[in-house]
Amino acid sequence: MHSTILLIHCPDEPGLVFKITRVIFNHRLNIISNSEFVERASNYFFMRTEFSGSFNETVFKDELVAVLPATASVKISSRRKRDICILVTKEHHCLSDLLIRHTFNELDANIRCVISNHKNLEELTEKFGTPFQYASHEGLERIEHENNILEIVRRYDPEFLVLAKYMRILSPQFVSHFPNRIINIHHSFLPAFAGANPYLQAYERGVKIIGATAHFVNNDLDDGPIIAQNVIPVAHSQSAREMAQAGRDVEKNVLARSLKLVLDDKVFVHQNKTIIFD
Amino acid sequence: MHSTILLIHCPDEPGLVFKITRVIFNHRLNIISNSEFVERASNYFFMRTEFSGSFNETVFKDELVAVLPATASVKISSRRKRDICILVTKEHHCLSDLLIRHTFNELDANIRCVISNHKNLEELTEKFGTPFQYASHEGLERIEHENNILEIVRRYDPEFLVLAKYMRILSPQFVSHFPNRIINIHHSFLPAFAGANPYLQAYERGVKIIGATAHFVNNDLDDGPIIAQNVIPVAHSQSAREMAQAGRDVEKNVLARSLKLVLDDKVFVHQNKTIIFD
Amino acid sequence: MHSTILLIHCPDEPGLVFKITRVIFNHRLNIISNSEFVERASNYFFMRTEFSGSFNETVFKDELVAVLPATASVKISSRRKRDICILVTKEHHCLSDLLIRHTFNELDANIRCVISNHKNLEELTEKFGTPFQYASHEGLERIEHENNILEIVRRYDPEFLVLAKYMRILSPQFVSHFPNRIINIHHSFLPAFAGANPYLQAYERGVKIIGATAHFVNNDLDDGPIIAQNVIPVAHSQSAREMAQAGRDVEKNVLARSLKLVLDDKVFVHQNKTIIFD
Amino acid sequence: MHSTILLIHCPDEPGLVFKITRVIFNHRLNIISNSEFVERASNYFFMRTEFSGSFNETVFKDELVAVLPATASVKISSRRKRDICILVTKEHHCLSDLLIRHTFNELDANIRCVISNHKNLEELTEKFGTPFQYASHEGLERIEHENNILEIVRRYDPEFLVLAKYMRILSPQFVSHFPNRIINIHHSFLPAFAGANPYLQAYERGVKIIGATAHFVNNDLDDGPIIAQNVIPVAHSQSAREMAQAGRDVEKNVLARSLKLVLDDKVFVHQNKTIIFD
Repeated sequence: MHSTILLIHCPDEPGLVFKITRVIFNHRLNIISNSEFVERASNYFFMRTEFSGSFNETVFKDELVAVLPATASVKISSRRKRDICILVTKEHHCLSDLLIRHTFNELDANIRCVISNHKNLEELTEKFGTPFQYASHEGLERIEHENNILEIVRRYDPEFLVLAKYMRILSPQFVSHFPNRIINIHHSFLPAFAGANPYLQAYERGVKIIGATAHFVNNDLDDGPIIAQNVIPVAHSQSAREMAQAGRDVEKNVLARSLKLVLDDKVFVHQNKTIIFD
Repeated sequence: MHSTILLIHCPDEPGLVFKITRVIFNHRLNIISNSEFVERASNYFFMRTEFSGSFNETVFKDELVAVLPATASVKISSRRKRDICILVTKEHHCLSDLLIRHTFNELDANIRCVISNHKNLEELTEKFGTPFQYASHEGLERIEHENNILEIVRRYDPEFLVLAKYMRILSPQFVSHFPNRIINIHHSFLPAFAGANPYLQAYERGVKIIGATAHFVNNDLDDGPIIAQNVIPVAHSQSAREMAQAGRDVEKNVLARSLKLVLDDKVFVHQNKTIIFD
Repeated sequence: MHSTILLIHCPDEPGLVFKITRVIFNHRLNIISNSEFVERASNYFFMRTEFSGSFNETVFKDELVAVLPATASVKISSRRKRDICILVTKEHHCLSDLLIRHTFNELDANIRCVISNHKNLEELTEKFGTPFQYASHEGLERIEHENNILEIVRRYDPEFLVLAKYMRILSPQFVSHFPNRIINIHHSFLPAFAGANPYLQAYERGVKIIGATAHFVNNDLDDGPIIAQNVIPVAHSQSAREMAQAGRDVEKNVLARSLKLVLDDKVFVHQNKTIIFD
Repeated sequence: MHSTILLIHCPDEPGLVFKITRVIFNHRLNIISNSEFVERASNYFFMRTEFSGSFNETVFKDELVAVLPATASVKISSRRKRDICILVTKEHHCLSDLLIRHTFNELDANIRCVISNHKNLEELTEKFGTPFQYASHEGLERIEHENNILEIVRRYDPEFLVLAKYMRILSPQFVSHFPNRIINIHHSFLPAFAGANPYLQAYERGVKIIGATAHFVNNDLDDGPIIAQNVIPVAHSQSAREMAQAGRDVEKNVLARSLKLVLDDKVFVHQNKTIIFD
């Protein structure tokens, strides 16, 4: 059955749910599921509604905007596949996982291309019939390199960029082109072990649990809104290298799960945090 | 801030959210959080709304009933403490946990009394100033014993009975007095190892994970609607006795969590399953 | 550094560790890690030792056998890659995961071939350069079909057979050729929901956690020694189909983990249970 | 059955297990379980052996020392109950948990006394017949306050001090009296959110998982060797206060588990990390 997702967030005021669902009712649409949340600290209202039925989107949206506060954000999303581009460096595990899911139609997205500053994942990518774009950073200034990437990305015009273990830091300028549209997997349980070599840091600190964090990328490294996290136990008997190996399964699962949440339109971003209706 | 919980479940039809929130809006009540779910298999609608503001409950309920299908169930629950009675046999860990939470005001309930067919938990119970009622089963038919318990329970008129490791099977007749109002903790990950001695069964099967299940009690032993479950890993090196010991921490946490869900009015029962808005 | 694994299990008696490590010491081998366990119920001794150094295996084993009880099992395993064959039906996720790990040298095994009674995973398998053997069951008696499989398997002479969602029941006769050498992934948290359609069973029972179990296959369906299990939470909002989808990630992780344990020589089988030194 | 734990750690060299188990064998002791581990980075050997039988401890230890490197640490521990003192501030949950376990003989320790700089847990403590020692910090220099505590502690001469949510920072001088003998529970998943108010930090960062860490206390705040950690998921809908409430169950379980590991002589400390044979 075809269904539509409606996402609204705005300052809270009395009657919002009533006013919004009246519009839905007047269009003879049928609500399948509905979630609202008011964050008390900021007095902000969040609502996600899934409904079925056909409707005139322009009229529908105009009627909604008319009953909402002026600063409201309204997003109407039919459940079609979104275009994404994936950036990688050398590690294969997150990319492999996404390519496999894509191949078997388990990812609600089209992987338009894979972009890398190394060539070692070219063979894997092309095995699955996905275009591989090589953008070497050798001998380039960061801005030149990023411009090359940007040019490739623009050719595909994706809704989201997925950093599937892309190990170079993106400049604020690059990031500003894709606000809340770049998803990164960080190989630690943030905010623990931000920065480089988190498994070595974890090994040296002697922690008993390690983890991974998927987050939107903003200007501050490893500091964007967190979408999903998960952990696994580790022991003294594991070297930093073995922790990294064990961690990779967590990384790929957390990235896949967060991408699914985003593609299912279940994630709001508000003041550097996410509100997730799952 | 004082808040009220509204729980509605009924056959689904278009416009329910709109019609319900219109009543709320007309009473100038302010929705804090709202969750709806339609179970497609049975085409049943579930809604839980938390709102603030004062209102005339009779008028409010009448107006709701007027817009809902005739078979709708409507529950309006102000967030006051509910009365509960706890039944135990000999093990202390679930009772201890509830008494401690009660003492420090962390349980949204009044423990009116503890009832047991043994005396060994009397001292513990009375340490916390809670009445202990001894109801021996020695030399009694089951029905006589249950009548004795029933008599005690009626004296306190609790909203819920909590079986905190009460190890005797309750008759359908007894259970019928408290539909969806008896919460039991079973010491296994149901439906695995239903019946007696689940830890011994788990040890003998050589499982790698054990668990606990909190559920409402219905007429079929260990077969009522499940509220919460949790698990912990076990290893070959643990005896059945050590598994039981490790399992106790899971049992008490699962019971406490499910009781909190029930007391927070987050649990619907529908066709031997629970719908939980958490 | 090259290392060797020594696995011994036998009835317990005093001095076993001393006698065994004396042999190791006399051969000037260096112990890297060592684990022993005595199961008290059966008074059985299990020891796994990893050591480095070169030695004459025949002499070494003879000396060990001389100090051990007559019924002792002694296995000396140099850490080379083992040959495995994978059996599948139609679902790809466990096979995909193993093929990817194999491709990137993360599986301590050679996948000699993939055998299936359907053709839909042929393309995936051959993408990775692995032979795909089609063994249709159409129009065949079970024994004929199994003989066809057996013939293929014998061509590759694998140490282990991995049932990566092979959905047909193997006969005791077939199984008897590979004692404790067939690893199966079952899509439930055994012993809950043994048999067919476990996710539908789980959905109908309304459980709050689902899981997967990897086990050796013996003559009784779903009843062999358990190697590994894991779980994930589920909610009322998930259909049986969505539970199955969520469960697949658990299945592939549990299968990969149990295969790693087996290939790392960390698993003993004793009286339908596993002893695992991890 | 009476059993003894032998803990040895020393620089690694060939033949250690053989030489140690020869001594055990010569004393006609029977090994129940045995674990060894060599940390390759530091080339250090760790061994924990549980054995049964009676023996002359002085002779036994002398013989062990004779075969071990000069710098070896040898600890022989009969499984008797250890004396502990518990320090608390105002929160009850960890103390309640330990008092309950103590009362029901589930803690392999004698709680000699509870020390606090506040009086609010006096009633709880004394309910369980445990001495409560009030040591106010009001109007005192830190060193004076610590001297008062030290005086109380010395009266009981405990093997371990347990900081069960003791919220004041102990001076290096105080800590130096109890090397690796003070166990603290920190209310975050270290190294994330060290320092004050970790739940508020976690709320503000928008993490999806929170945790607790039990560790030995050394001179650097929140930086001692980690014994155990655990986590629970959290969501946007939880306030910092609700996260703290949910976290308390994790805190008490992690503290109880780490204390059990320590009392079972399963924990070695080496270079600010723990080696745990569990």
